[in-house]
Amino acid sequence: MNEAARVTGRLAPDQGARDAALSALASRFGDRMSTSAAVREQHGHTTTWHANMPPDAVVYARSEDEVAEIVRICAGHGMPVIPFGTGTSLEGQVNAPFGGVSIDMSQMNRILAVHPEDLDCVVEPGVTRKALNEYLRDQGLFFPIDPGANASIGGMASTRASGTNAVRYGTMKDAVLSLRAVMPDGRVIRTGTRARKSSAGYDLTRLMVGAEGTLGVITELTLRLHGIPEAISAGVCQFETLEGACSAVVATIQSGIPVARIELLDELQVRASNAYSKLTLQEKPSLFVEFHGSEAGVREQAELFGAIAAEFGGGEFAWAREQEARNRLWQARHDAYWACVALRPGAKAIATDVCVPISRLAECIMKSREDLDRANLLGPIVGHVGDGNFHVSLLVDMTDSAEVEAAGGFMSRLVDRAIEMGGTCTGEHGVGHGKTKYLAKELGEAVDVMRAVKQAIDPGCIMNPGKIISPDEQSSLVREPT
Amino acid sequence: MNEAARVTGRLAPDQGARDAALSALASRFGDRMSTSAAVREQHGHTTTWHANMPPDAVVYARSEDEVAEIVRICAGHGMPVIPFGTGTSLEGQVNAPFGGVSIDMSQMNRILAVHPEDLDCVVEPGVTRKALNEYLRDQGLFFPIDPGANASIGGMASTRASGTNAVRYGTMKDAVLSLRAVMPDGRVIRTGTRARKSSAGYDLTRLMVGAEGTLGVITELTLRLHGIPEAISAGVCQFETLEGACSAVVATIQSGIPVARIELLDELQVRASNAYSKLTLQEKPSLFVEFHGSEAGVREQAELFGAIAAEFGGGEFAWAREQEARNRLWQARHDAYWACVALRPGAKAIATDVCVPISRLAECIMKSREDLDRANLLGPIVGHVGDGNFHVSLLVDMTDSAEVEAAGGFMSRLVDRAIEMGGTCTGEHGVGHGKTKYLAKELGEAVDVMRAVKQAIDPGCIMNPGKIISPDEQSSLVREPT
Repeated sequence: MNEAARVTGRLAPDQGARDAALSALASRFGDRMSTSAAVREQHGHTTTWHANMPPDAVVYARSEDEVAEIVRICAGHGMPVIPFGTGTSLEGQVNAPFGGVSIDMSQMNRILAVHPEDLDCVVEPGVTRKALNEYLRDQGLFFPIDPGANASIGGMASTRASGTNAVRYGTMKDAVLSLRAVMPDGRVIRTGTRARKSSAGYDLTRLMVGAEGTLGVITELTLRLHGIPEAISAGVCQFETLEGACSAVVATIQSGIPVARIELLDELQVRASNAYSKLTLQEKPSLFVEFHGSEAGVREQAELFGAIAAEFGGGEFAWAREQEARNRLWQARHDAYWACVALRPGAKAIATDVCVPISRLAECIMKSREDLDRANLLGPIVGHVGDGNFHVSLLVDMTDSAEVEAAGGFMSRLVDRAIEMGGTCTGEHGVGHGKTKYLAKELGEAVDVMRAVKQAIDPGCIMNPGKIISPDEQSSLVREPT
Repeated sequence: MNEAARVTGRLAPDQGARDAALSALASRFGDRMSTSAAVREQHGHTTTWHANMPPDAVVYARSEDEVAEIVRICAGHGMPVIPFGTGTSLEGQVNAPFGGVSIDMSQMNRILAVHPEDLDCVVEPGVTRKALNEYLRDQGLFFPIDPGANASIGGMASTRASGTNAVRYGTMKDAVLSLRAVMPDGRVIRTGTRARKSSAGYDLTRLMVGAEGTLGVITELTLRLHGIPEAISAGVCQFETLEGACSAVVATIQSGIPVARIELLDELQVRASNAYSKLTLQEKPSLFVEFHGSEAGVREQAELFGAIAAEFGGGEFAWAREQEARNRLWQARHDAYWACVALRPGAKAIATDVCVPISRLAECIMKSREDLDRANLLGPIVGHVGDGNFHVSLLVDMTDSAEVEAAGGFMSRLVDRAIEMGGTCTGEHGVGHGKTKYLAKELGEAVDVMRAVKQAIDPGCIMNPGKIISPDEQSSLVREPT
């Protein structure tokens, strides 16, 4: 399989093919195709540290049929296709290292159906998570997956995103019941039905979720929804030590309290969030916690959690009972990344994303904290700690080569540490082109099987090439960032 | 992709290749390989109606290395490989339509590790669900997935099984964190880590779960566990009408009560289970229900459910408070299939398995009940109705060709009805070779993508050929059952 599976093929089309594809797209899509430098750069944009690698053109699609047309035109010329949602991915997922056409899905933003009785809905991929939740609120429903950014549902599916609610409601893997996608040859498939479970053949839904646009373009998603709980209570509990806060999380999860959110901010992150989000917390390791259930159930959960927190040095619980106070709290949590960026003006924030078995969480965080201090790096820590997932936001002066090197060393040690503890290099950000080198380290020969799947579904290797699967030939073909 | 994706290849090896493979296996495995008719027949055994198609030989594997050896020997001779757990699948998944070697995994039944603090464990595929739960009980943990049979974990993963707890705890798709598998070329891969979530590349775990042994042989699984709830209460609620029972289920799910189990038995199934399992229920449509949580939480759930049931004509709730009474209740539910078989001695039971959006459940069940009556067929109905999944156990005299034909017509109409309602032909039994014809009906061109994946990972088409993906060439090559 090794050889057959190798993604070879000409990844960057030659100038003639490129011109022909662009000319065909221009004549078909007119104003809705752009080759302007500003638009291209915006679509090669990347949050965090990856260099901007703009595509050759951007086309704004309005329907599945149009996506299929664009893909067919590109396939005919060996032109890479990069699906684009909101450009908020963190590992360079929308970069165009081999050039190509970015399909901007933001105009495919209709909510096609809501089935309150089945707790599901059908949406186009350009719908953002906030727009969806605003739409659903009046019906007493919500969609729980919430990465920091107001990302598009298609993008969130593509990176297998999660966020603060995953500990209770799962990730995009669990939230997508079924989807439609344009495959690399332009055909459209539907991967499942609205049934809540199925054993009907290979799980193509889960294959497309997390594929980062490398197997096709998602054009429609059927999502599981949840009823807005009767009672919600949230609050902050502050700890004397980072270890105490971590241990409280582990004990909470192990005790089976169905906590809806349990988020860690270390001392430095609290300082950053105080400044950026106008919080007034003490600069101490803190847990942001939320409980969902009936009035009585929420009270019971909060009492149980309070007892556990106290055992590990947690202070008084500061409740955010009103929706407005809760919103402020969670907005601050979602803005943690931007708070970090503001902590050291001029520096780039490099977001790491390891996830470990929860029994190793405290140890992994403590060792990483020590490692940061030893390497003299500035890196606030936040985490979806109920899942064992945490982020160090390294704030790096990219003009200081020694510091850049130190940051690289730290990242590599962090991933090694997580893998050694039975964890993963990425809990929710995906591989993009930033983590391809870690994937083989983590999963070994399984990556060859991924390559075989990629080769089978996208033999021309036009779908978001260079992401997840790193062909041997890639590095020499990568175009310099423009 | 269409043409390249076609699984062609010689599916049934010629006699020379067959003899060479068997001779190599015999000299390597000695007594642990058997070609006796009785053993072969046992391994081509199938619950429900499919004819027995025995393999050429059975090898009892004791380790992953041995599985890899067997697969490599078979691959070298184009010999089909059929992984075998307990032989309790319902769609002919272990049949050998092209001959080949059945790998019996029952001796790979070690529980390799339990990590109570992480709520996970690592097991070999031959461990059965009951053995696992017995082992876990002392640690306050349980594994929730419970198909009727005491199936093996490897087999359950391969058919993406579920059972009565799926409404609360999910299916094998949710229960498997990671797995190891021997691929068709004999290489071993690991698909994930012990992290509770990951965005590290294609979701090969979910690709192997539900693949029914057509992509490789699962040799180890890391499973999510749950703490045994502080309080459990279960009981039976009987209804005047089938529609009332169905509507009560729908209302319960929609109201967000986190019911752990909610199972429907129609009047006929109650009669069958009374006789087979010595229950003393009135012959009325009934719901078997279970609640998990804290003492207070369980009480609250039961009260809410009681109010809903009363609204739809449900009678007094008969509680099974003691563990022994609960065990009796659920054993009766798990034995529903055998109770059906006993209802009409001499008849074969044909289990159907549609799953529909819950809003259509009552309608789908009522229409199917009418259809059964019109076709003059005997078919008790049971269902994991909280998921929209129900089974009609058709009791058919296979010597009566008119009745066999009527049963076939009913099954086909049932699947059409479920698909038309946005559902699936199989909620938990899998496709096997019994449902290949429905798969294309349900998912259309997505089956071509499945075929491309199959072809890429198993180019020689040796892994459980003829299951899930039905190659065009298959029918003419199928050997007659022996």
